[in-house]
Amino acid sequence: MEFTIKQISAIIGGKVRGDEDLIITGVSSIENSDEGDISFIKNEKFIDKVIESNASAVVAHRSIEETKKTLIIVDNPFLSFIKLLKIISDRKQQQPRTIHPSAVISKGSFIGNNISVGANVVIDGNTQIGQNVTIYPNVYIGTSCKIGDDSIIYPNVTIREEVTIGKRVVIQSGASIGDDGFGFLQIKGKHVKIPQVGTIEIGDDVSIGSNVTIARAALDKTIIASGVKIDNHSHIAHNCTIGEDSMLIAYAKLAGSVKIGKNVTIAESVGITDHVEIGDNCMVGAASNVYKSLEPGSIVWGSPAKPITFEKRLQVLIKKLPDIYKKVKDL
Amino acid sequence: MEFTIKQISAIIGGKVRGDEDLIITGVSSIENSDEGDISFIKNEKFIDKVIESNASAVVAHRSIEETKKTLIIVDNPFLSFIKLLKIISDRKQQQPRTIHPSAVISKGSFIGNNISVGANVVIDGNTQIGQNVTIYPNVYIGTSCKIGDDSIIYPNVTIREEVTIGKRVVIQSGASIGDDGFGFLQIKGKHVKIPQVGTIEIGDDVSIGSNVTIARAALDKTIIASGVKIDNHSHIAHNCTIGEDSMLIAYAKLAGSVKIGKNVTIAESVGITDHVEIGDNCMVGAASNVYKSLEPGSIVWGSPAKPITFEKRLQVLIKKLPDIYKKVKDL
Amino acid sequence: MEFTIKQISAIIGGKVRGDEDLIITGVSSIENSDEGDISFIKNEKFIDKVIESNASAVVAHRSIEETKKTLIIVDNPFLSFIKLLKIISDRKQQQPRTIHPSAVISKGSFIGNNISVGANVVIDGNTQIGQNVTIYPNVYIGTSCKIGDDSIIYPNVTIREEVTIGKRVVIQSGASIGDDGFGFLQIKGKHVKIPQVGTIEIGDDVSIGSNVTIARAALDKTIIASGVKIDNHSHIAHNCTIGEDSMLIAYAKLAGSVKIGKNVTIAESVGITDHVEIGDNCMVGAASNVYKSLEPGSIVWGSPAKPITFEKRLQVLIKKLPDIYKKVKDL
Repeated sequence: MEFTIKQISAIIGGKVRGDEDLIITGVSSIENSDEGDISFIKNEKFIDKVIESNASAVVAHRSIEETKKTLIIVDNPFLSFIKLLKIISDRKQQQPRTIHPSAVISKGSFIGNNISVGANVVIDGNTQIGQNVTIYPNVYIGTSCKIGDDSIIYPNVTIREEVTIGKRVVIQSGASIGDDGFGFLQIKGKHVKIPQVGTIEIGDDVSIGSNVTIARAALDKTIIASGVKIDNHSHIAHNCTIGEDSMLIAYAKLAGSVKIGKNVTIAESVGITDHVEIGDNCMVGAASNVYKSLEPGSIVWGSPAKPITFEKRLQVLIKKLPDIYKKVKDL
Repeated sequence: MEFTIKQISAIIGGKVRGDEDLIITGVSSIENSDEGDISFIKNEKFIDKVIESNASAVVAHRSIEETKKTLIIVDNPFLSFIKLLKIISDRKQQQPRTIHPSAVISKGSFIGNNISVGANVVIDGNTQIGQNVTIYPNVYIGTSCKIGDDSIIYPNVTIREEVTIGKRVVIQSGASIGDDGFGFLQIKGKHVKIPQVGTIEIGDDVSIGSNVTIARAALDKTIIASGVKIDNHSHIAHNCTIGEDSMLIAYAKLAGSVKIGKNVTIAESVGITDHVEIGDNCMVGAASNVYKSLEPGSIVWGSPAKPITFEKRLQVLIKKLPDIYKKVKDL
Repeated sequence: MEFTIKQISAIIGGKVRGDEDLIITGVSSIENSDEGDISFIKNEKFIDKVIESNASAVVAHRSIEETKKTLIIVDNPFLSFIKLLKIISDRKQQQPRTIHPSAVISKGSFIGNNISVGANVVIDGNTQIGQNVTIYPNVYIGTSCKIGDDSIIYPNVTIREEVTIGKRVVIQSGASIGDDGFGFLQIKGKHVKIPQVGTIEIGDDVSIGSNVTIARAALDKTIIASGVKIDNHSHIAHNCTIGEDSMLIAYAKLAGSVKIGKNVTIAESVGITDHVEIGDNCMVGAASNVYKSLEPGSIVWGSPAKPITFEKRLQVLIKKLPDIYKKVKDL
């Protein structure tokens, strides 16, 4: 990359203090900057770091007397810096807006304009791909899928038949969308497969991490609403519903027919039992196991999950068990 | 899909009450039916749902006076309905019974009749693929493997050298079968790799979920017996043995040389320490960690795993810790 | 395989007691040997197993009077046996030292000598692949990557842009290296993506398991130092640093900016909260959750992680809760 400060301030806005013609060759955190880098600070707490930093320029929320570095002063440095990062990221990831000759696209499929289809991509029949979609190499998309405009699908992703995906959806590499749910009926000690003939509906602006699995419904639909962000290694079983703008950190483990409301935050490595409902705006702490439904706004932690203040109290008391035991024994 | 009730009753058996010529265009759960759908109820408890439902026809265990919907009456509605689902599922997933020209099949391999090999599939030398096998695009199968008749391998699966797979095995997308086990010998602070030269033997009717990993043995064999069902994200380390008809729910974490008996149920996210033996018919509750071997028929839960009634009692008592602490402190 | 004892002793050293011309057709554990196999015993404890074993030859640390089997006597049988296993493993996994015609290698990339590039591999522009590298089928490698000499990349791996990988690195199938970290800024209830423009630097002799995910840094670098071994299903989030020769067993879950020192052992299924630092030589027990930084040399277990002796004591006392409760209630 190579930008002048003038070009950067045109992208992110703000007032320049210093050399507008300074050439910037990298972005970095304030702690790990080299000469030529531009960095940013989030707020007042990081002012000292600006002085110690090797960055040539800094995006900050105010002028800093103690440094001679070039500054770009904006209201919200992080948010402004993101605008620059977006441009850098888009350039790095630029893919040719063509269909690679090795891609195998069934004649019955419809492909939008300005699309990038990488080498060895396979798209089966009756599938619709929107405008400006980017599909990296070695992706498989089954029959009768819909992929909305501006979505990006990274390498080695599998999307099986009849999955509907909205606009601006990002699917990281190795994710599996639409495999059969784990449904079996036990008959005389044998597990008989319940054929999984339902589908999946994914809204707009959804982000799906690497190696995530989302199972198709047994009947009906597995639903991921718009704005949902799902981190790596998560597992959304058949017939789950996840409400708008909920966030699932890595290794979220949703058993069948779990229903998650809007704006819910599920921390790392949380298990949720089948058919449990998590109300809007709930927060579930890391490594919790939720066996019962939660009212909207609940904040829980632990295994089994309990109200967070109670769980914290219990964690303190468990550490007092040696004292408790000694006292009881002495009685 | 489009079936008449007459056609459906020919598939699933039973006695029709109502219009045999009614055209059915979908299957659904009783709660989410639209006009044109056929649904089913499991038993007496769902009778009311039939009346509320928009389904045009219902598979039920008895006649229902209160509804004018067309009914198909069978002994076991769920099991009968599965027969219909199987036909729908097979049609949806129908793959061309050909070898795609882009597939790379080594000359030394033997491919059975009526096989489907998708685009970009790679099959290395000396491998035998049985009759009616379906291999989706972008699958890799290494040298000297055997895949039994009627097996289905979904996209982006890796099967490395010398893996033997039985008949009617289903492997969902992204699974890795036959990678090296995690074996290292520590020598002067460095981890020296123990080459993993064993193999894997998978029986008939095994189901392997998305992104499951099954490691080859260091020496000898990793064994998955017939009828075993393994859910997504599970990890079967080197030299494990899993007995017939055992079921491992998502994120089963089997360390090296774990031995699991027959008809065992391992719930979600259970960890089992290396060399532990789980006897036949055991049940292990969700999120348990099993550090010691279990007698046949054990039912355990918790971390470390304990007899389930004891674990449940402890969970109740842990919640009483504030009371216990207060009483002890007051003494 | 077919070796004479003479050939094997030339590979592993040691003194032969018995028939140097004996033909060996397999390797196995001492418990599961067949005629024609060579096996080994680790130490004195396994002497009896030699007598019971069907192996035709055994690598042992001393002569064994009670058996007529051919022996190869060495100082460290396990280590010597590994030398034989290495040769067997290399032969089994031998890949053609060519570039498969279906591989898509961008003109701007530089490929070293004696390389194996499998079918359907895609290598984007400006990437450098060292000498003797083996890339299995269906792998994707993005722009501006570097892969060091003698590295092996198994099928269906994704390596995205600007990832640097050292020498003798092994990446098992299905791993995703370089996907975006899970970084979002919450603005008015919506999660706005923080573009992830950092990179990943992986040292020499690193081993990365199946379906592992390693995220690129938001800014700066995610760093995996030389000698690190990472087991299947692990997750290294953005901006983590892992020190030399540390070992992470399956399902290690490192949140963003975690810093792990040298020679650390992380057992199975451990979660570590963002920004936590784990000092050199620490050991973290299975299924622990680490929410606070650990001093070098700490040995911890539990959730939250505690000094291991304390955790063990607490586990004993938790099982005494029924007694404690009864006594307290009786007061």
